Amino acid sequence: MKILGIDPGLRTTGFGVVRQRGSKLTYIASGTINTPTDAELPERLKIIFNGVSEIIRTYAPDCAVIEKVFVNVNPQSTLLLGQARGAAISALVSANLTVSEYTALQLKQAVVGHGKAHKKQVQDMVQRLLALPELPGSDAADALGVAICHAHSGNTLAALNKLTSKTANKGLRMKRGRLVG
Amino acid sequence: MKILGIDPGLRTTGFGVVRQRGSKLTYIASGTINTPTDAELPERLKIIFNGVSEIIRTYAPDCAVIEKVFVNVNPQSTLLLGQARGAAISALVSANLTVSEYTALQLKQAVVGHGKAHKKQVQDMVQRLLALPELPGSDAADALGVAICHAHSGNTLAALNKLTSKTANKGLRMKRGRLVG
Repeated sequence: MKILGIDPGLRTTGFGVVRQRGSKLTYIASGTINTPTDAELPERLKIIFNGVSEIIRTYAPDCAVIEKVFVNVNPQSTLLLGQARGAAISALVSANLTVSEYTALQLKQAVVGHGKAHKKQVQDMVQRLLALPELPGSDAADALGVAICHAHSGNTLAALNKLTSKTANKGLRMKRGRLVG
Repeated sequence: MKILGIDPGLRTTGFGVVRQRGSKLTYIASGTINTPTDAELPERLKIIFNGVSEIIRTYAPDCAVIEKVFVNVNPQSTLLLGQARGAAISALVSANLTVSEYTALQLKQAVVGHGKAHKKQVQDMVQRLLALPELPGSDAADALGVAICHAHSGNTLAALNKLTSKTANKGLRMKRGRLVG
């Protein structure tokens, strides 16, 4: 069972592929798809769509997972992020992969053990869980993290969801499109 | 020269195909792609992606145009709209169509003659310009409108852009992600 994780972004989209055999997880690949900031939006979306399609052709994953994104402080950034995420999901579904979604909170709880972990802690734990020779970049780590989250979900998702909805209400709140708390 | 216009939306994506021969515009087709509101997001994006791809296969347009969207009052809606737009653009670019973008303001100026036109005025003018037997639906009218806008752009875009940037600054302003003015 090969899981493709995606951390979408207009400038940088992280990807990570892990193999799950029972409870054992093995690292296969990870990296980023980068788009030039001076290119037109359709061109940038094309790079993301083609990049994800190429990764699917190369690693032939059995399913895909993508990080749920939060609305940004800046509405224009939210719109751009949404379009990047739409292009990535389009590549996944047009390759007939099922796509599961997890929030950053669920990812952090699955990988680090609590929802308030910093980026560096996610990178450290992903390195340890997959026995990587070096620290993965932050976008690749998030993509690998969401794949790990999905791998663990069979056992832990029900419990996790309960935790998450409690913590989500407590830890994160929205106010005028801003993430506060 | 066949132009495909798209008015993106998660629930309803409008499309319109017109043929341009010199200054003459002929209606070819229009309609909407609808997604069930109770489906999961990846499934809905797949319907949009496949729908736009199917329209391209059926009508073989030479180029595509899509309406630029504004950020919404509700940031969550902005994120959803962004993803729908990302899926539609992905279908266009993966069919190797060049994609031009116009704002609603440019569309209204090209079709009705001023940027503050109401939806109904756009529908009326699209019906008149394309000699349609009946009033097009609002989403299809916007899609046909953006195609008309592109068709006219060869002659009028330079002048239009000057106008638009002035009017845009005057008529429309953003305040905490809200369109005001």
